[in-house]
Amino acid sequence: MTGRRLRLGMVGGGDGAFIGGVHRMAARIDDCWELAAGAFQSDPARSRAFGTSLRLAPDRCYDDFRSMAIAEARRADRIDAVAIVTPNYLHAPVAFAFLDAGIAVICDKPMATSSAEAEGLLAAVQESGLPFVLTHNYSAYPMVRQARAMIEAGELGVLRVVHAEYAQDWLASQLSGNKQADWRGDPARAGPAGALGDIATHAFHLAEFVTGVRATSLACELSTFVAGRKVDDNAHIMLRFPGASRGLLWASQVAIGAANGLRLRVMGERGGLDWSQETPDELRFTPIGEATRTLRRGGPGMSHSAKRATRLPAGHPEGYLEGFAQIYADASELIRAHIESRPPDPQAALTPGVEDGVRSSRFIEAALRSADGDGSWTPIP
Amino acid sequence: MTGRRLRLGMVGGGDGAFIGGVHRMAARIDDCWELAAGAFQSDPARSRAFGTSLRLAPDRCYDDFRSMAIAEARRADRIDAVAIVTPNYLHAPVAFAFLDAGIAVICDKPMATSSAEAEGLLAAVQESGLPFVLTHNYSAYPMVRQARAMIEAGELGVLRVVHAEYAQDWLASQLSGNKQADWRGDPARAGPAGALGDIATHAFHLAEFVTGVRATSLACELSTFVAGRKVDDNAHIMLRFPGASRGLLWASQVAIGAANGLRLRVMGERGGLDWSQETPDELRFTPIGEATRTLRRGGPGMSHSAKRATRLPAGHPEGYLEGFAQIYADASELIRAHIESRPPDPQAALTPGVEDGVRSSRFIEAALRSADGDGSWTPIP
Amino acid sequence: MTGRRLRLGMVGGGDGAFIGGVHRMAARIDDCWELAAGAFQSDPARSRAFGTSLRLAPDRCYDDFRSMAIAEARRADRIDAVAIVTPNYLHAPVAFAFLDAGIAVICDKPMATSSAEAEGLLAAVQESGLPFVLTHNYSAYPMVRQARAMIEAGELGVLRVVHAEYAQDWLASQLSGNKQADWRGDPARAGPAGALGDIATHAFHLAEFVTGVRATSLACELSTFVAGRKVDDNAHIMLRFPGASRGLLWASQVAIGAANGLRLRVMGERGGLDWSQETPDELRFTPIGEATRTLRRGGPGMSHSAKRATRLPAGHPEGYLEGFAQIYADASELIRAHIESRPPDPQAALTPGVEDGVRSSRFIEAALRSADGDGSWTPIP
Amino acid sequence: MTGRRLRLGMVGGGDGAFIGGVHRMAARIDDCWELAAGAFQSDPARSRAFGTSLRLAPDRCYDDFRSMAIAEARRADRIDAVAIVTPNYLHAPVAFAFLDAGIAVICDKPMATSSAEAEGLLAAVQESGLPFVLTHNYSAYPMVRQARAMIEAGELGVLRVVHAEYAQDWLASQLSGNKQADWRGDPARAGPAGALGDIATHAFHLAEFVTGVRATSLACELSTFVAGRKVDDNAHIMLRFPGASRGLLWASQVAIGAANGLRLRVMGERGGLDWSQETPDELRFTPIGEATRTLRRGGPGMSHSAKRATRLPAGHPEGYLEGFAQIYADASELIRAHIESRPPDPQAALTPGVEDGVRSSRFIEAALRSADGDGSWTPIP
Repeated sequence: MTGRRLRLGMVGGGDGAFIGGVHRMAARIDDCWELAAGAFQSDPARSRAFGTSLRLAPDRCYDDFRSMAIAEARRADRIDAVAIVTPNYLHAPVAFAFLDAGIAVICDKPMATSSAEAEGLLAAVQESGLPFVLTHNYSAYPMVRQARAMIEAGELGVLRVVHAEYAQDWLASQLSGNKQADWRGDPARAGPAGALGDIATHAFHLAEFVTGVRATSLACELSTFVAGRKVDDNAHIMLRFPGASRGLLWASQVAIGAANGLRLRVMGERGGLDWSQETPDELRFTPIGEATRTLRRGGPGMSHSAKRATRLPAGHPEGYLEGFAQIYADASELIRAHIESRPPDPQAALTPGVEDGVRSSRFIEAALRSADGDGSWTPIP
Repeated sequence: MTGRRLRLGMVGGGDGAFIGGVHRMAARIDDCWELAAGAFQSDPARSRAFGTSLRLAPDRCYDDFRSMAIAEARRADRIDAVAIVTPNYLHAPVAFAFLDAGIAVICDKPMATSSAEAEGLLAAVQESGLPFVLTHNYSAYPMVRQARAMIEAGELGVLRVVHAEYAQDWLASQLSGNKQADWRGDPARAGPAGALGDIATHAFHLAEFVTGVRATSLACELSTFVAGRKVDDNAHIMLRFPGASRGLLWASQVAIGAANGLRLRVMGERGGLDWSQETPDELRFTPIGEATRTLRRGGPGMSHSAKRATRLPAGHPEGYLEGFAQIYADASELIRAHIESRPPDPQAALTPGVEDGVRSSRFIEAALRSADGDGSWTPIP
Repeated sequence: MTGRRLRLGMVGGGDGAFIGGVHRMAARIDDCWELAAGAFQSDPARSRAFGTSLRLAPDRCYDDFRSMAIAEARRADRIDAVAIVTPNYLHAPVAFAFLDAGIAVICDKPMATSSAEAEGLLAAVQESGLPFVLTHNYSAYPMVRQARAMIEAGELGVLRVVHAEYAQDWLASQLSGNKQADWRGDPARAGPAGALGDIATHAFHLAEFVTGVRATSLACELSTFVAGRKVDDNAHIMLRFPGASRGLLWASQVAIGAANGLRLRVMGERGGLDWSQETPDELRFTPIGEATRTLRRGGPGMSHSAKRATRLPAGHPEGYLEGFAQIYADASELIRAHIESRPPDPQAALTPGVEDGVRSSRFIEAALRSADGDGSWTPIP
Repeated sequence: MTGRRLRLGMVGGGDGAFIGGVHRMAARIDDCWELAAGAFQSDPARSRAFGTSLRLAPDRCYDDFRSMAIAEARRADRIDAVAIVTPNYLHAPVAFAFLDAGIAVICDKPMATSSAEAEGLLAAVQESGLPFVLTHNYSAYPMVRQARAMIEAGELGVLRVVHAEYAQDWLASQLSGNKQADWRGDPARAGPAGALGDIATHAFHLAEFVTGVRATSLACELSTFVAGRKVDDNAHIMLRFPGASRGLLWASQVAIGAANGLRLRVMGERGGLDWSQETPDELRFTPIGEATRTLRRGGPGMSHSAKRATRLPAGHPEGYLEGFAQIYADASELIRAHIESRPPDPQAALTPGVEDGVRSSRFIEAALRSADGDGSWTPIP
């Protein structure tokens, strides 16, 4: 931790939002960031009031994201990055505005509501040369990075089977008046995918992140169980990876009994790994023919990757905010390196970026296409 | 427990076999059965020696199953049922022989190696009027029957999602000289399906048994990961049930870290259930909007179905043999009722029978067909 | 399994009894025993009716245990052992009667209601030269024997801390009309100790069995929480072992939330072990400075002791009855060896015997004395 | 979150320290605090360098705590509270210095190394009228507060048995060169108690906090297992609470296999609760005669107390830092209320204070006295 705190702007995340507050808490944990500016809600007055409640200077509480991008770009103490935490459909427009203004982006997922839009962003990011971070936060848990490092080191041998599931139950019935549920169920604001876009994308990203391999095609079935819902709330997906390895992905928001049940299992010819988001400090590892070991964050046998993302000793649970904080810590390294025109710590580059956003969009579109085609195998470009 | 013990004959289950010993232990637990005759191995001398080691009378240690069926049929103290515990390809031929001889059958699964053969058995059973029990033993665990009873009573409401998985790792590498692995890997003896036939059928039966609903179609992908193996060792299957409900089934024998990981989750509009075979005495139940309860065999809230299959108080673990014993206890009731020309206890009729065997064969064939057709949706007739 | 089945007699275990049925099921599992005679209840007519319901020959359904001992002793086909499953106060009188008759004993614990009585039994057993087995059944679980073997092999190094707990909740309120609760709460039938005698003795035996070390003294506090109860229902005990090692033992029958929660943890200078009766197939082992491994019955790394007590592959749960069956299997070996005048398999000698019964009585008396003396440290002779 | 951030000073917590960094991260999470001044290490130059690395103004990086207290007291923008995170022996001297300077205190536990010193602090705090917070952080977990609220509401009825255990293994062998281990093993810096002072005090505080009842006496045995260690590393303690209720407390730093295994179980006449620090978001609750429910932070059935300490939805794990953050959030409310001369939110007053520090000292001294007296029952004044 050297040098000044980076200045963070935020678009979205006002009253009643969930993920905006998470970003703010996460950004504070490692003390790399200070919130400096924001446009938090669509209503300008409420947006300003909200910014004031966060102790922002009045001249940095903006009416809307466009004026914010323009104004910030002109300041000497302008923000080093903007965090985009709006409903999905605004992610890309906001990102374009800030990239245009020369400002790095930390974008909540999904990055875009179509792969065309995502590819547009990719082009814009590449052209700008600016850092772009996509908050697939689950990939930043220390034991997820441990799993990735172990697979990279060959501890599982050739991979065979990858199972990702993400089960929730908060949308098991029709919620009315829940701000989170409302926009997520509205294709105009969330995009055409429901559970598929909201959580299957996390599971898919996690599977590819940990294995280091990209799925080539999928077969998908989508369901909408709750009457009146306009998007899917359950997705069953079969995956093919290069070579013989195969995967299964289940995402559901109607799985009564599950809170935020993201789990990944990877099995290769030499061993198996098993990780669950709700107990993120543990990773079960079974070398073939041996007893299962419970690896613990902060405990023996940790990789550099896991240690670097660890704040506390074993047994002192780290959780969702700490995982998210790692995204912000890595983002700060990427942005500092950019400012200082030096290559970043390669570990910071594990943080998901604009390519992951493109990938997610392609995954969603392939899944929608497969589901429309009665589950036929569909390539993920 | 009234009246004499029923007399059990056994075909298969000699030296080095696994499931034959299980049947014998299970049959003893509730003291309904005594082993009275057998043809245990293909080699007559070893078969007789094995029978003698089990304290059978010499004249009831047979050279082969055909002579056993004929000889037993002629005895006044003939066996009340034969347990068929041979490699798969012999299940049906042995069953035909004993049905012909007028002897009830307790058959290890899979009942047949094709649905044609299975339907032949169905006809033979119906013509004979004899009891026929198929040892889909996992359906006899008290908490599995509890789950079924709860769903039947409407505690989950309309069903939505059914997830069955059966993960093992004992075939993660090529085993040579393992008698169990050898015949299971030989299509001539095990049938054309590997993990699909051996364990996916258990998971499929369990899913239909617990939900009380029959899947209408499936989409399947099979893999063979271990070099030189002639049958599949991993199966990914999507399922459609009547109405909107959907399922996912994973069966694997290369899932390093899993021993005998059969798990079933069922989620409806009003609640969810979660059961794992390796901790069979527990059933997690979540009513919508409430905390998850861990129901325990022998504990509060048990259905008649569960209580009837319970031998011990809560906390005194029952396991695989006790679940299997319930099949034998139920079989004895079915056979006694047949002998006494009375209807059996309806609970005993929960025990799987010849129709379940036909069903399994159709499931296997549909899965093979779907897999051959690149995972296209295939009806299960 | 060679030779004839041994013949088992039973005293106690009639209608409404719990443990008698367990003994009978356990004795059948490995097919070493057949029930041949019994005196099951204090009422002669009901005792005979019960024996008949178990398919005993009428002349071997006895009115009372004394006539049974005398009559059996005279028969050529006399029982090879008697299982004593009465309320506690009758254990020793019945044992004396059968030892006098020259018949080996399998006695439910506690063996006696005082150490004087226990020592009398010890003398009688020694004089008779007959096998005497005490059913501290929890010591027969494969993973308990695995733990013992690992400690014996030095895998924990010098032992430091031993924690045994046995928590139940079935006596958390006054039960009336529960036959099990009734006699256990009556000092005249159960002895002066409640939870202390019923379950703390199991935990104490387990601790000494697994560690191979005998506690030298204890400090105890007993409580009776349920109004009107005449014996303790909760015991807190501190233990001293030779050298520096120390222990803690908690036994409770009012621990709401616990069913049959027997757990043992042993920690030495080089590692730690952790076992819970409700998931008996697992043993957690942590070598110092390494990740915890979950050892599984039937899995890799098993000792001869554990393998010998194993019936099923890993993942096919064995439970309470199988653990109890091992006591009966070992008893059969001890008795056969006695009949054949040869030394028994040393592993069979792991089965608890008369010395363990004396030990339990001394433990109970020391605990009662300490509790009377306000928890002062009291030697266990 | 209204008004300015409070200004925090810190004494201790420099290079190589553990808990200082925890305080800083925790203080940031809810954005109530900003670090404004500090004296971090005994070496003035290193202390200043460390403060600079934390971006403190140079004039607020102090050489030592005494000059810091004096200088800060004189500033208009003086710190609102000092966080004391030194080795134990300095806690009280630093606290006295800042109380003298009129500055509120947030003190790491143990507050003092003797009850005399603790009582001196109590007097000083009372005289000053200043807020004083003691970081028994485990009491701030939402599910701990939930447990307290449930007991307060009578959901367990009359309490019977309280079990607290705190097992770690990081001191299972002699650590040399570990800064944390070094001072903790030195009576001159840590006080006369080892595991007793370091972790048993947490377990004891938790037991009293959750039950709302104070133990009246204890019987204790202390051990030092690691050769050369000067303080205890294992404590076994029996507890008496008013009325009939009884407790057991185990604290160990040599329990190989345990990382930070703090667990509390409370059983009353109507139900039982079970909580483990390593999975802090769950609380198992068993009403008598019913199935165990797993209550989840953020899930159904939460008390106001738990909700107020909750940042994230169920299934998004909160951990150690968030629990600690609650202490800082509550401290900020206590201090703001003090500044504003108004009564604080009563929930903030759940945060441990100077009386808890006195209580801990008395507990430690009673335990040491009992251990010296061979475990005799010793009142906790």
